[in-house]
Amino acid sequence: MSLRISVPDTRWAETLADLDVDLVVWDATTPQPDGHLDLVLWPYTLQVEALAGLDVARIGVIQAQSLGYDRIADVLPAGGVYANAVGVHEAATAELAMALLLAAARGIDRFVRAQADHRWQKHWTPGLIDRRVVLIGVGGIGAELLARLTGFGADVVRVASNARDDEFGHVHGAEDLGRLLPAADAVILAVPLTASTQGLVDADFLACMPDGAVLVNVSRGKVVVTDAVLAEAGRIVFASDVFDPEPLPADHPLWSLPNTLITPHVGGLSASMRSRVEGLVRRQIDRLRSGGDPEHVVVRSPR
Amino acid sequence: MSLRISVPDTRWAETLADLDVDLVVWDATTPQPDGHLDLVLWPYTLQVEALAGLDVARIGVIQAQSLGYDRIADVLPAGGVYANAVGVHEAATAELAMALLLAAARGIDRFVRAQADHRWQKHWTPGLIDRRVVLIGVGGIGAELLARLTGFGADVVRVASNARDDEFGHVHGAEDLGRLLPAADAVILAVPLTASTQGLVDADFLACMPDGAVLVNVSRGKVVVTDAVLAEAGRIVFASDVFDPEPLPADHPLWSLPNTLITPHVGGLSASMRSRVEGLVRRQIDRLRSGGDPEHVVVRSPR
Repeated sequence: MSLRISVPDTRWAETLADLDVDLVVWDATTPQPDGHLDLVLWPYTLQVEALAGLDVARIGVIQAQSLGYDRIADVLPAGGVYANAVGVHEAATAELAMALLLAAARGIDRFVRAQADHRWQKHWTPGLIDRRVVLIGVGGIGAELLARLTGFGADVVRVASNARDDEFGHVHGAEDLGRLLPAADAVILAVPLTASTQGLVDADFLACMPDGAVLVNVSRGKVVVTDAVLAEAGRIVFASDVFDPEPLPADHPLWSLPNTLITPHVGGLSASMRSRVEGLVRRQIDRLRSGGDPEHVVVRSPR
Repeated sequence: MSLRISVPDTRWAETLADLDVDLVVWDATTPQPDGHLDLVLWPYTLQVEALAGLDVARIGVIQAQSLGYDRIADVLPAGGVYANAVGVHEAATAELAMALLLAAARGIDRFVRAQADHRWQKHWTPGLIDRRVVLIGVGGIGAELLARLTGFGADVVRVASNARDDEFGHVHGAEDLGRLLPAADAVILAVPLTASTQGLVDADFLACMPDGAVLVNVSRGKVVVTDAVLAEAGRIVFASDVFDPEPLPADHPLWSLPNTLITPHVGGLSASMRSRVEGLVRRQIDRLRSGGDPEHVVVRSPR
């Protein structure tokens, strides 16, 4: 008996047409198709609240196209099985973090504004060479960031919740942050949102950072206390892709805070995403076909 | 007998105060000091035309703080000896090239403009992952660029005037450009300005590049034919630190060309510069003291 799979649009149906499966196009904004679905490829940009309406008894696994899953357990009905998109976004998110870090370190945003005024105005910038970069988070995004940072001549110091050593050297525990932050020229946040990372970057954390140091956030908005950043009034350079709240309302004061660089949660929106999701779906289907459990299940709601 | 050295300001005199030399502060905008100078540390931003007024018979070596020396031979009086700043700017210039490349590949300039309007507007970007980057130039800046590009998951293809193999793999000769450019997602120019690189990027070169490909220039403005870029009307993304003419006048059409990102020749203006110039000057003084010839002499005007 062939597997029955739903995909969110006809383009996905074409991409996967060679698979010997029963493909249904369903974007999760219309009523759930009758019958059982072995795998539902969830739309990338749909609000997670839409999961609440699913009849999960008729779904084998919901395959997300996102990496973060901090709100899924709250909305997924009992019995639901949710797999995240491991391996799809880490590299692209790390790439955006590097784009934000380099833009901040070399003043690209200032030059863009000068260009709008046709102003040829040189200014010195700190750069990354010989600077200290504190990378918080050693998961998938952290590893991709380390690979990209390596060639830049910076002193990269890694931090995770608990101290450890790995193939790339020493990882400091979170207890060292108070000592590391005053020497940091840049801090990059690449942690999942958990009870211990929520609000990690608060007024005390920011107070430890030197004037003009750069804070890059590509994890989740709630890792940073937005009001604490606003209270610094631009003393810290805040280059961020994720925010609390999100989307940032048009009247939010962060938009016009000095030394702030805002991208609208586009870490994963790179041309590399689609082929990686495709590979993930094909591997999941292979596993289901061979009777195995799906990979990357991060939420399994108790019945 | 101790060496006699001129430095352009009192801050440099303080930096080098520990050296057992006779230090003179002279910024080359006032008459040349009486007597002989074994080394003149040339001001970083002074127009090179100021070299024409020197009495070079009373100067051992002019130590520049810049890397490029394309106009020096035209202005340096007969008998003049000019050393460029090898090792000072290559890394910082490569870093700016990466900042420009990533800003173009991830749309940072568009997001900066959206931020000014408080607009939360997502858009997809090509990124560098799985993309083809053609790096033209295998000198100091090219090597620093290769080190930085390595972690980004791009397919980096190197080109120099003549084909060769080195420790990093194959380098294509310029004759392969016609074949390589149509598959290039990005092209980075990191060549010196010479008779053969002047106007290298002309209408024919640009016509070989695919729609939306990125051209990054951190070499010299005259390597690119500005009018040819203007004629493309934004079909190519042009992210450049150097221009012809330079500085770009306020009424120049390039300022408002679509898909153009302009920085005002700031490749070397990074915090890392000063300590590197200091190291270079100290090494030159050591050589002169031991009776050796100065290093990095790139122009020696015939008497």
